[in-house]
Amino acid sequence: MTGSTADGQRRGRRRGELTVGTIARLAGVSKPTVSKVLNGRAGVASETRQRVEALLREHGYRRPDAIAPAAVLEVVFYGLERHMAVEIMRGVEPVARERELAVAFTEVVEPTSPGRSWAEKLLSRHPIGVIAVYSAFTPEQHALLAASAIPLVALDPSGEPLHAVPSVGATNWSGGITAARHLLDLGHRRIGVIGGPTRSLGARARLEGCRAALDAAGTALDDRLVRTGEFTFEQGLALGRELLTRPDRPTAVLCGNDLQALGVYTAAWRLGLRIPEDLSVIGFDDIEATRWCCPPMTTVRQPLAEMGATAARMLLTLAAGGPLAQPRVELATTLVVRESTAPPA
Amino acid sequence: MTGSTADGQRRGRRRGELTVGTIARLAGVSKPTVSKVLNGRAGVASETRQRVEALLREHGYRRPDAIAPAAVLEVVFYGLERHMAVEIMRGVEPVARERELAVAFTEVVEPTSPGRSWAEKLLSRHPIGVIAVYSAFTPEQHALLAASAIPLVALDPSGEPLHAVPSVGATNWSGGITAARHLLDLGHRRIGVIGGPTRSLGARARLEGCRAALDAAGTALDDRLVRTGEFTFEQGLALGRELLTRPDRPTAVLCGNDLQALGVYTAAWRLGLRIPEDLSVIGFDDIEATRWCCPPMTTVRQPLAEMGATAARMLLTLAAGGPLAQPRVELATTLVVRESTAPPA
Repeated sequence: MTGSTADGQRRGRRRGELTVGTIARLAGVSKPTVSKVLNGRAGVASETRQRVEALLREHGYRRPDAIAPAAVLEVVFYGLERHMAVEIMRGVEPVARERELAVAFTEVVEPTSPGRSWAEKLLSRHPIGVIAVYSAFTPEQHALLAASAIPLVALDPSGEPLHAVPSVGATNWSGGITAARHLLDLGHRRIGVIGGPTRSLGARARLEGCRAALDAAGTALDDRLVRTGEFTFEQGLALGRELLTRPDRPTAVLCGNDLQALGVYTAAWRLGLRIPEDLSVIGFDDIEATRWCCPPMTTVRQPLAEMGATAARMLLTLAAGGPLAQPRVELATTLVVRESTAPPA
Repeated sequence: MTGSTADGQRRGRRRGELTVGTIARLAGVSKPTVSKVLNGRAGVASETRQRVEALLREHGYRRPDAIAPAAVLEVVFYGLERHMAVEIMRGVEPVARERELAVAFTEVVEPTSPGRSWAEKLLSRHPIGVIAVYSAFTPEQHALLAASAIPLVALDPSGEPLHAVPSVGATNWSGGITAARHLLDLGHRRIGVIGGPTRSLGARARLEGCRAALDAAGTALDDRLVRTGEFTFEQGLALGRELLTRPDRPTAVLCGNDLQALGVYTAAWRLGLRIPEDLSVIGFDDIEATRWCCPPMTTVRQPLAEMGATAARMLLTLAAGGPLAQPRVELATTLVVRESTAPPA
């Protein structure tokens, strides 16, 4: 469909010539009865209400005040962050609702699709601002958004702060330290690490935080027990199998995110290893599925809803022309201890 | 914040007095350079581009064409359906994008919150249409939406078709039959069932489909092995424990949805029962987490993205004033056999 179709729809919404009186005549009821239906008031027989509603729909009636579409705040996800999308949207939405803004959802499925890019389409909708949830971001996309002069805030749950773009993240480095210390405190020394993709600064921060904590404790990270890969279940499964089939397999595996950790769960289960008796596993993010696996997963929590709310507040400040108190906000990560970590056997 | 703040923001977006010339003067560059930045074209030094972008943001510059906010298609979820929200949004979004509509996300957290209801707030944003994803729907909410004369399509993944509202669902009854037949074919006869809430017609359809398949096979459903509860992990855990601690515990449990089935996984794991060696489990929905559990779950798939796309197309037809080919569409459910079902020991 084309832009002209969309225009046609908007014009269609203004067919205000259809009055309450016309609907009343068509339905064979009084004008006050139609008004009651329109305003959701009681005192109309169910059958009458349905007849009036059917006519209103059929004739495309619109209230006279229904001409100004909502201002929209756009949230853009890459497919990779899909499992985190709802938590983030839950944070953004109440902030936007307070201002009577709609919150729009865009998932970028094919960054290289032909024709008009998703970014151009998004900008053609004239949002009051854009929250971009990205692990990666091409210079072209950045330029296009920045050049539109529509306020942009980056939300980086995987941790890639963009130069010159205000952003919200979490304390990945500290999270890596916390996770490693938890395993050290339990007595683990042969610790495997599955990190996120090396192009992600956030993934590196988690891995290097972990390395620093182990170094500080005098237990150097054994590079033979370190793997990196995409933030997916499948990578966790494949890399977990690699680590767990070694003769010197680790007694604990620290993962770059929860999906990788769920992959390690499956790798362990396929090999007949029990968690936490034979292997401790620790994730990162605290997505809902960490409460649904067996055993419930110990993980480093990113406050995704709070990060979404913070990004939305920053965006509203920018949209109102105000300066930001700070262009980069990092919210604290916290260790959530459940049942996937225990002392080594 | 109040409506006047939102108005203020919209007015702020029209501060068009700030011209390209002003920005050029403030940045100490030529007008063509500012135009290049605005249009995302190459040929501007990085440092210059950043300075211009900063001025554009600082002064709240808006392109002259950036005055018409997008038309919005609203999707409303109850918190209960949160785990299905992203799959559904992924179906709605491409359909809306073709028409250059924004897709808005609303989660109803407190249906009984004071002040203006979520529904009134939503309607004040004047969407071109609303997709309501509901397991329950109060008569008042229904009346308010219907009376607004904004097109409404119900998407009922848990299966409660609303009278007089066009709706999209899945074949719950057939899904229940398919799940039961799969267990019968494997040789199960002592089959436990955890159904969804009895107020949900869709949940009942799944349960009664299962009962019908068992009856037809001459294996009557034992009512002592039937439980019903909310579509949550917690209910699956509690009711699963009830069934699995009985002296005549079932050899298979058929669940109303995947979250309940994940709860049964945890109940079995806590009792030291292995899936599928000691117990077969079958879910309903095919949410992403069914691939992440151990073992991967056999389930009845609802095509959530396709359901979302269908609802969006119906809504666009209604918004354009057209009649619907049919007011109720049910998409097929399909059995996805993974590793949680096997012959009884």
